[in-house]
Amino acid sequence: MIMNSIDGAVNKIHGIIPPMFTPLSGQDDLDVDGLGRLIEHMLAGGVHGLFILGTTGQALSLSNRLRRELIDCTCRLVHGRVPVLVGITDTSLVESVSLAQHAARSGADAVVTSAPPYYPIGQPELVDYIRNLAERLPLPLLLYNMPTHTKVKFGLETIQRVMELECIAGIKDSSGDMVYFNRLLALHSQRPDWSFLMGPEELLAQALYMGADGGVNGGANLCPRLYVEMYEAALANDRARVVKLQDSILQISGKLYGVGRHPSSLMKGIGCALSGLGICSDTLALPYRRFDTPERIQLQNALAEMGITAAEPWPHVSLEVK
Amino acid sequence: MIMNSIDGAVNKIHGIIPPMFTPLSGQDDLDVDGLGRLIEHMLAGGVHGLFILGTTGQALSLSNRLRRELIDCTCRLVHGRVPVLVGITDTSLVESVSLAQHAARSGADAVVTSAPPYYPIGQPELVDYIRNLAERLPLPLLLYNMPTHTKVKFGLETIQRVMELECIAGIKDSSGDMVYFNRLLALHSQRPDWSFLMGPEELLAQALYMGADGGVNGGANLCPRLYVEMYEAALANDRARVVKLQDSILQISGKLYGVGRHPSSLMKGIGCALSGLGICSDTLALPYRRFDTPERIQLQNALAEMGITAAEPWPHVSLEVK
Amino acid sequence: MIMNSIDGAVNKIHGIIPPMFTPLSGQDDLDVDGLGRLIEHMLAGGVHGLFILGTTGQALSLSNRLRRELIDCTCRLVHGRVPVLVGITDTSLVESVSLAQHAARSGADAVVTSAPPYYPIGQPELVDYIRNLAERLPLPLLLYNMPTHTKVKFGLETIQRVMELECIAGIKDSSGDMVYFNRLLALHSQRPDWSFLMGPEELLAQALYMGADGGVNGGANLCPRLYVEMYEAALANDRARVVKLQDSILQISGKLYGVGRHPSSLMKGIGCALSGLGICSDTLALPYRRFDTPERIQLQNALAEMGITAAEPWPHVSLEVK
Amino acid sequence: MIMNSIDGAVNKIHGIIPPMFTPLSGQDDLDVDGLGRLIEHMLAGGVHGLFILGTTGQALSLSNRLRRELIDCTCRLVHGRVPVLVGITDTSLVESVSLAQHAARSGADAVVTSAPPYYPIGQPELVDYIRNLAERLPLPLLLYNMPTHTKVKFGLETIQRVMELECIAGIKDSSGDMVYFNRLLALHSQRPDWSFLMGPEELLAQALYMGADGGVNGGANLCPRLYVEMYEAALANDRARVVKLQDSILQISGKLYGVGRHPSSLMKGIGCALSGLGICSDTLALPYRRFDTPERIQLQNALAEMGITAAEPWPHVSLEVK
Repeated sequence: MIMNSIDGAVNKIHGIIPPMFTPLSGQDDLDVDGLGRLIEHMLAGGVHGLFILGTTGQALSLSNRLRRELIDCTCRLVHGRVPVLVGITDTSLVESVSLAQHAARSGADAVVTSAPPYYPIGQPELVDYIRNLAERLPLPLLLYNMPTHTKVKFGLETIQRVMELECIAGIKDSSGDMVYFNRLLALHSQRPDWSFLMGPEELLAQALYMGADGGVNGGANLCPRLYVEMYEAALANDRARVVKLQDSILQISGKLYGVGRHPSSLMKGIGCALSGLGICSDTLALPYRRFDTPERIQLQNALAEMGITAAEPWPHVSLEVK
Repeated sequence: MIMNSIDGAVNKIHGIIPPMFTPLSGQDDLDVDGLGRLIEHMLAGGVHGLFILGTTGQALSLSNRLRRELIDCTCRLVHGRVPVLVGITDTSLVESVSLAQHAARSGADAVVTSAPPYYPIGQPELVDYIRNLAERLPLPLLLYNMPTHTKVKFGLETIQRVMELECIAGIKDSSGDMVYFNRLLALHSQRPDWSFLMGPEELLAQALYMGADGGVNGGANLCPRLYVEMYEAALANDRARVVKLQDSILQISGKLYGVGRHPSSLMKGIGCALSGLGICSDTLALPYRRFDTPERIQLQNALAEMGITAAEPWPHVSLEVK
Repeated sequence: MIMNSIDGAVNKIHGIIPPMFTPLSGQDDLDVDGLGRLIEHMLAGGVHGLFILGTTGQALSLSNRLRRELIDCTCRLVHGRVPVLVGITDTSLVESVSLAQHAARSGADAVVTSAPPYYPIGQPELVDYIRNLAERLPLPLLLYNMPTHTKVKFGLETIQRVMELECIAGIKDSSGDMVYFNRLLALHSQRPDWSFLMGPEELLAQALYMGADGGVNGGANLCPRLYVEMYEAALANDRARVVKLQDSILQISGKLYGVGRHPSSLMKGIGCALSGLGICSDTLALPYRRFDTPERIQLQNALAEMGITAAEPWPHVSLEVK
Repeated sequence: MIMNSIDGAVNKIHGIIPPMFTPLSGQDDLDVDGLGRLIEHMLAGGVHGLFILGTTGQALSLSNRLRRELIDCTCRLVHGRVPVLVGITDTSLVESVSLAQHAARSGADAVVTSAPPYYPIGQPELVDYIRNLAERLPLPLLLYNMPTHTKVKFGLETIQRVMELECIAGIKDSSGDMVYFNRLLALHSQRPDWSFLMGPEELLAQALYMGADGGVNGGANLCPRLYVEMYEAALANDRARVVKLQDSILQISGKLYGVGRHPSSLMKGIGCALSGLGICSDTLALPYRRFDTPERIQLQNALAEMGITAAEPWPHVSLEVK
């Protein structure tokens, strides 16, 4: 995706682009104050963009109305300081297109879609779907590979076929399959303008080492500077620093996302930590719920143990995580 | 679910309730004439109810607007002759409730939900979700077990827990897991008013033999009387007739749904056959598409070979399937 | 498989053929006395054959030496009263053939194989494997569909292709997939001499209702007469009796196999119950172990609650299970 | 694992340790000449050890007799030039121990086991199994994580628990799950003497970058020097060289293992390529078979295209792969 950067240069999407947690005050109510604080927290940490309405943003659990409200508020609050990417994944193509049109009107920079959830599809159907969707979109499109949630992977041949579409600008891979990601990177020469972004933060360093453009990592909601520093260290091939930062990232993902037993623990962990730092509410939309008291305490202890605190107003989280 | 039947008796949902194929003339356009013919075709075949906006009805692929239009048209066309059940499955609870309210206003008799797709959830979260959904619904709720699509099964303990909710009226099981279904039936005594309905038509006979209340079988869009006769034969324990009808049902599912390789072949097969019989269009919503010419020919040949034809206007399909 | 029955008639494998639990006194030691009592217990219950060295018999966990000892002892103890089927499943074809030769020398009546475990294979490789194995065997071969353990299913086309091999005599299906089993039964006319046997006991009644020849059900180690009575009731289409017996079978599988959380609970439950009835030791071969005390007590309570006791010497277990 | 190296220093298992392809001339016949050439080919390429009877070596498909013959021949031919690791994975613990004893007598340096295949087990059973196995072994044990074949993963807690066993010397991870491998590496400090080895060659560079001790990569049968050079480049943090070598490795795995559709294509590809280079026969043990002519030609073309040839006698394969 080619974009005008602040200094007028032409640039593609790169760097750390947190998949933003959606601050809620109820099943269908946005925590607008929390949203503002969360955005400032991440921008102060140096992130290179924001991705709203992704999996971590609980997009699919939100009403169509709330999704639009979130787009409007985020674009207004970010006010062009970094690119805003908007998730438009929906089970219905018509609704995805409608959401993309709203995003364009609000000033977003790009949209992002996974495969359509619910109906099992094969690769030919996925190619067909993406082609039909892409041609109706008013903004550049990033693909989002999320097979644990959609039940289908963007196969390598599928990627090669949709690479012919000018309006597609890259892919975020959250499969956790590094063999696949390495094969994606081998396609980079076919579309040098594409962005190849890593989802799971535990793989950020190794993805960047092999040529990825950046990361869309949940933990960057909480500790944005840690991920930005990893981005810089890996690009600089500063191996000693990478190994040290990797240790911090593994601690965060192990201690904050690993509390409780259900697949929701990532979202609950990020929400609970953001709430503990005074940034926003950790209310979740059903089918998820925020942690109960025992898990809250366990998580607050983990935060304290790792030295993650919130100074006023929303400072960078200390990197002196041991 | 207790309902007033035509003769004034009190009755629960039972018998053959086809999961209605949704006739479309475009991605976001209803084939209203086809819808009328399809409804009359099924009612003429003696079905005991209709289930719209299920998986076979492509509900999740349709826009919110189109789903509402379909509810309105179907309720108007059925005009109380049989109960109308409306699928409200959505990734967002708010949207599910909103759709249920629309269904109630249109005169539908019950709503049906699967687990919310997309986000992986555990059984405690599923119980929590169903409780929260059920208490906001204006109509009785049937559960819909569809783990191939939603990634989560309604566990037996979950069923036992939500059986405490008065407004839940039964379950349609499309898991294809007959051990599970047998264990469901063993819970019948806890809620004698619940309906236990079998999804996969290949298991209809055996489900009824062990005490199920009916079937929600895709093939009943096409050959409604065949499934109604199976219902009657199995209830009457007429084993010779059951075995003969089973042969016809296996032929239909084998020859009509097994064309092509992708998981969409059931929907494509039903649509193509309905189109071949002159009942409605076989346009599908993306991510699916109707069959191309080679598969169309293969399927029309299978129809002819099985002797399935459409006399005027929409007669019962011949049961003399060999 | 055509066999001479006691009365001189020609007969295929049918009826209740328990997959025999292997009584052990150590990781590599047979409990020969327990083996004798277990065989008499099952024969007294009226079973129509015995299947040794199946999954329930822990075959794959046993040494090659112990497998041979078990074959010898069982054939000697049964002494032709019922057919003895011997599992020869192994990761190595050479070892499977060797075991089959030993079984033939010991007087066994047939051998049984699943797909070779460990290496993932496709259907063409499975056809090739079965053909190569079958032609080297000195005894009729039954196929054993066990995809949860072998990772590959005997596809319907595979079955049709190996049906051409005269020496194959039938299939035991333990997939639990009743749609598949119904499709298997539809192939019966191609090989009327084949035996179609149901593994999971919860599906025995429905399998027989649709035309299966019998069942290979773990619970028949414990309560052989219960399964024999179900066989007779289902064949006689005595629906009221079937429903009553089904209730007992569901109780046994629910209460005895459902103790503990691991996939080993079926084997642990059968072993523990047999031990509680004084029939044999419940020692298991690694990677499994018999229940610890809390689960033992829970299981003994379940046995008592269901009224399953052992009179002297090894009488029929009471069918007055409530 | 602490071993005496040639110069008397103490060393743990490290570097490139090819999982040796087993040259066969029949289902139960070893190609002894081919074995000699293959061993010399790999040693000439600079590999740091050999792992025989692994998945690539078809161990589980071989008879017990042939496995012993292979151990004897290999140990004799290697004659102490590099450590020989012997796979003892079996469905039966007794057979695994017996094989390990044979390996010790033959002069092997260590044994390797995956989880026992066939029976599904939980983590507590896996810990129990490994403990029982380890205490009966005469040689150091490496664990082998291969969940696609065994159906169970060595969980992180399981690893932490068996780390207490002195005789366990490390782990080879073939799960392809780099998040998991990164978490394994984080346990390195608990057992600095453990070896952490990467299976999938596409991940070798990134594993070494984060601290792995080496790789057990199938392609090193064919192009041993390529993998040895990658090992050296990654340890030296020579990123430009790593990226170049990664391109060659991705080509090999893409073009040689990706021919044909079945999971056997890795073994077929390696065998076919070794045969094409004149090193050994590509006969495979059932359930696998070597490629048919069309795939052979396709693969020979790929070899030629990549410039992989065999000069006399078995020189290093050219690294000038483009």
